Amino acid sequence: MGLKAAAAMALGDPSADYGSIAAVGLFVVLMCVCIIVGHLLEENRWMNESITALFIGLGTGVVILFASSGKHSRVPVFSEDLFFIYLLPPIIFNAGFQVKKKQFFRNFITITLFGAVGTLISFTIISLGALGLISRLNIGALELGDYLALGAIFSATDSVCTLQVLSQDETPFLYSLVFGEGVVNDATSIVLFNAIQNFDLGDISGAKLLNFIGSFLYLFGSSTILGVASGLLSAYIIKKFYFGRHSTDREVSIMMLMAYLSYMLAELLDLSGILTVFFCGIVMSHYTWHNVTESSRVTTKHAFATLSFISETFLFLYVGMDALDIEKWKIVSQTYSPVKSIALSSTILVLVLVSRAAFVFPLSFLSNLTKETPGGKISFRQQFTRSGHTQQPSSAIMITSTISVVFVSTVVFGLLTKPLIRLLIPPRHLSREPSSISEPSSPKSFFEQLAANSPGHLDLENGTSLRRPTSLHHFWRKFDDGFMRPVFGGRGFVPFVPGSPTERSLPLLPGNEN
Amino acid sequence: MGLKAAAAMALGDPSADYGSIAAVGLFVVLMCVCIIVGHLLEENRWMNESITALFIGLGTGVVILFASSGKHSRVPVFSEDLFFIYLLPPIIFNAGFQVKKKQFFRNFITITLFGAVGTLISFTIISLGALGLISRLNIGALELGDYLALGAIFSATDSVCTLQVLSQDETPFLYSLVFGEGVVNDATSIVLFNAIQNFDLGDISGAKLLNFIGSFLYLFGSSTILGVASGLLSAYIIKKFYFGRHSTDREVSIMMLMAYLSYMLAELLDLSGILTVFFCGIVMSHYTWHNVTESSRVTTKHAFATLSFISETFLFLYVGMDALDIEKWKIVSQTYSPVKSIALSSTILVLVLVSRAAFVFPLSFLSNLTKETPGGKISFRQQFTRSGHTQQPSSAIMITSTISVVFVSTVVFGLLTKPLIRLLIPPRHLSREPSSISEPSSPKSFFEQLAANSPGHLDLENGTSLRRPTSLHHFWRKFDDGFMRPVFGGRGFVPFVPGSPTERSLPLLPGNEN
Repeated sequence: MGLKAAAAMALGDPSADYGSIAAVGLFVVLMCVCIIVGHLLEENRWMNESITALFIGLGTGVVILFASSGKHSRVPVFSEDLFFIYLLPPIIFNAGFQVKKKQFFRNFITITLFGAVGTLISFTIISLGALGLISRLNIGALELGDYLALGAIFSATDSVCTLQVLSQDETPFLYSLVFGEGVVNDATSIVLFNAIQNFDLGDISGAKLLNFIGSFLYLFGSSTILGVASGLLSAYIIKKFYFGRHSTDREVSIMMLMAYLSYMLAELLDLSGILTVFFCGIVMSHYTWHNVTESSRVTTKHAFATLSFISETFLFLYVGMDALDIEKWKIVSQTYSPVKSIALSSTILVLVLVSRAAFVFPLSFLSNLTKETPGGKISFRQQFTRSGHTQQPSSAIMITSTISVVFVSTVVFGLLTKPLIRLLIPPRHLSREPSSISEPSSPKSFFEQLAANSPGHLDLENGTSLRRPTSLHHFWRKFDDGFMRPVFGGRGFVPFVPGSPTERSLPLLPGNEN
Repeated sequence: MGLKAAAAMALGDPSADYGSIAAVGLFVVLMCVCIIVGHLLEENRWMNESITALFIGLGTGVVILFASSGKHSRVPVFSEDLFFIYLLPPIIFNAGFQVKKKQFFRNFITITLFGAVGTLISFTIISLGALGLISRLNIGALELGDYLALGAIFSATDSVCTLQVLSQDETPFLYSLVFGEGVVNDATSIVLFNAIQNFDLGDISGAKLLNFIGSFLYLFGSSTILGVASGLLSAYIIKKFYFGRHSTDREVSIMMLMAYLSYMLAELLDLSGILTVFFCGIVMSHYTWHNVTESSRVTTKHAFATLSFISETFLFLYVGMDALDIEKWKIVSQTYSPVKSIALSSTILVLVLVSRAAFVFPLSFLSNLTKETPGGKISFRQQFTRSGHTQQPSSAIMITSTISVVFVSTVVFGLLTKPLIRLLIPPRHLSREPSSISEPSSPKSFFEQLAANSPGHLDLENGTSLRRPTSLHHFWRKFDDGFMRPVFGGRGFVPFVPGSPTERSLPLLPGNEN
């Protein structure tokens, strides 16, 4: 507010927060440009919005670099808190909220195994490979712990970028697998990091391994329970108080705040916020979403998607700008030759690819296609996490290498993903699955899908299981209809809204069915 | 993210941002409580959501005070940037977006005069009164500039709290007047502040006065133009690119980002961000909102309202907590007697009331009812703005007094507003004005309403002008239909969305008509 600027001036501090306003304004402009360019490139088979944002960020970084005469390329106002507290939760929550639950739970065990075992295999290969190869590059004092951290960082792959390219309608199984792995990955990485803390090479025993598996199961279980509990609580509160009677704002606010709260609580309890908010999203779309008024349903569906979209665009823009952060590159170029720097980046990139291939190829050729892409995304997080420690040359070169790997993997593999999918899956198989929209209820769920799931029975193209519903499914249906729905609402629940048009008079939007 | 916490731990910084996560989590919980309590108190004739949030904030402040053994009462993680960069824009934008344009523009001149002249009168009375009364309390070294600042602070009344109590449907004229004045107030205060900067008692001339009026008109005009231009640009972009063809997310994102951008730009250019974002909201609801798909319309309408609602709740919670900030009160109690402190608060409160009455009473009894309430709200902003300067006792006592005034005025007048309105306006006059919903188009607008406006012709109960549309209205209609709508879309514009249900098949939600 101008008034405030004036007041700040009156108090003798003329440029009080001019800088932060300018920075926020710049980002808003860039995001608008990204959205417009992304829209225009929608039909393009090579580009996607993430890559556009990366390049625009990079371009802006160059401009800022010249404008500040080589001093810095990024806008210094955003702290790393921003990403973990504000940007990540909406992205993951929306993914849970919009995910096709049927597909996801049908392949639940596969996804979990992929995430957990895959991360472990990647971690081992990258750590050992780094130990063997990077130590020969002679870049300075790296301890065993550093190699292990490197392994954990690059094995923790996130899939935001890949998911932008994959379509939940066209390739539902692929989508579930890639996404689910990203979610489970996070839990695995936390356990890995904690394990590294107390790591002792001389003492690897079966008991340690059991302990490791135990803490993974604990973390996975408790995060899931927290997310489910938050979702159910929101459903119960909204059903109990009929907020829609007075105002739809309260319904939407409560949904947003409770989802966010689940993430915050998980973080405070040292659980996996990503897993928690993801499951909270799933439960909210199954129960809470059906308890609110029609306009709140439309609003939440699109508002959550929009918030996630804005957060993603912001994230990729920032990474593009951060890639040019001259301070880090300077330290690197003062200490090491460019050859060494490129060698290090290539080594890590090759290791990541090898480690991915090592656990992915055995499963299937199609899954392999999926796995090659995400190489970078979580490493953003690590990069941000470690970006405070750039004073030592050896950590600076690790950071610049990380950025290079992130960049190459996002851009190169991002560019390749769309054409590759089109090449490998004939277009006639890219069915739009209209059946999942018109399909009349019959919500199969968790246990049923767990039961129906086994890798041998997966139809990789549309994910339809060949098995019929089992007794486990009947049990869940009975439980859901007899106990859960009366308490928490859900599909078919008609909230009490005097004078409102009949519920469900609108055709429901696709994607949130079941 | 747990991973991040783990990484921070690995880097030897265990409590990296534990504090900020806890603080955000606490606020989220409190906001949920506020929403539930506010919902339960909806029918209550004394309470409203703002007061609930204030009291809950106060209660939490007490708890934190005891928990931290008297060290602090508020959560230190939020900077003042938060309010001006993130919380205020959505509140004001939403007000512009949802305001009944017909009512607002019909009373445009009244509103502007009220805002500008009223603020000046208040400023004069409070400054002179403070100079006369407070100097006798002997609280230390206050200069003339301090008294003038005091006048500017307390004459800049914002009306967020009052607007929560007033209903746009029940008392549209009152609502327009209170709201419009709050918006114009901001521009006046900026000009006042700038004037104080170069103030010289010995040199008050007619030229100075003209200069003052000139800068007010410049500020008002340029802020308005910037807001209108941003709104039109968003309408043009969305109409031009048909974002809805591929994704509704892009439409909603662009609307949010452009609105926000207008505020940021105004701040960067030292204009009134509040005026700008308010007019941007009005233009967006007249043009842009009609260019997007049906689901985007529902989404934006409710999402903007929700964001505004959350921001307001947050703001009042924070003020409640901040009121107990022990550091300031300690300095005060060490230096001054409680009697002096109460005397000062009362003096200011009386001055504010007198100054409000002085310019409000002459107009009408009804307007007077409106004006008594808002006494505090903008002073929140000033309080935040100045809160960094608590080291000097004389400024500390001014801040604590400000907080007291804000608190008393919000709580006491907030409690009185609902019953007073009911008492003074007989219930049969509180018409719900269904006509404004079913009324078939005929959008009267700016010039028409300007022309129709004169205080003598205002029907104070429902704001219906007694005059018929004039030639100015015809001019505007012709201009709007002939030039504006073909370029910027607007009502009746049907975006190209293949396969979408027919536009306007839904009954449009009330409140955004015209």
